[in-house]
Amino acid sequence: MKIYFSGSIRGGRDDAKLYADIIEHIKQYGEVLTEHIGQMDLQENEITDRQIHDQDLNWLIESDIIIAEVTVPSLGVGYELGRGVEMKKPTYCFHRTPQTSAMVSGCPEIKTYHYESLDEIKVLIDQIFQ
Amino acid sequence: MKIYFSGSIRGGRDDAKLYADIIEHIKQYGEVLTEHIGQMDLQENEITDRQIHDQDLNWLIESDIIIAEVTVPSLGVGYELGRGVEMKKPTYCFHRTPQTSAMVSGCPEIKTYHYESLDEIKVLIDQIFQ
Repeated sequence: MKIYFSGSIRGGRDDAKLYADIIEHIKQYGEVLTEHIGQMDLQENEITDRQIHDQDLNWLIESDIIIAEVTVPSLGVGYELGRGVEMKKPTYCFHRTPQTSAMVSGCPEIKTYHYESLDEIKVLIDQIFQ
Repeated sequence: MKIYFSGSIRGGRDDAKLYADIIEHIKQYGEVLTEHIGQMDLQENEITDRQIHDQDLNWLIESDIIIAEVTVPSLGVGYELGRGVEMKKPTYCFHRTPQTSAMVSGCPEIKTYHYESLDEIKVLIDQIFQ
């Protein structure tokens, strides 16, 4: 099982530690292709935007499932969700805000969940994989 | 010429007036399907997220070109860009921040421009349509 985890990078890193905790939990179910999303000291400077894009797109194509934390608004996460839907990848989004984008919560191909704590998202993720 | 203009709604409305000014300028080149993006008093409450999603997706499919202002990070804008790329729509993104998402600026199918003023984006838009 190859898992694409998606979270905000340039949109804001407020949730970076949370991404790392979620990724740590997800790893029991398969290989997380985008484990760097949770790195607190993430450095992108050594590769070009084109290289980042192509690497992430290849991982997206390769993945069996997409898990996204969408609380921090992010163009990149939205882009990955849009392409993922077109690729018919099973896609699950999680947000702590009362609502998220209508393009995400209103998309019939994406399952969207509201949650409040790390413990709560862990339970939801367990249900998805079981 | 049917034009899909994309800008942040739930991600933040700081640029709503700017979106309206850009749309006003673009209208000379065709029909802007998403003119409501520039409405200062935009109300979404009367329709469901599913209705918003399906309406916007239909406009995206119908459009000949996508123009997006991506300065305010937005999941919905990113989603539209991702689906638009898969639909092979000519896509142009504009940002005032020094950089934008690597998934946008690194995408070979999207043309991305940095600009600073309304006058400057008007000139760039004129060049696209001429």
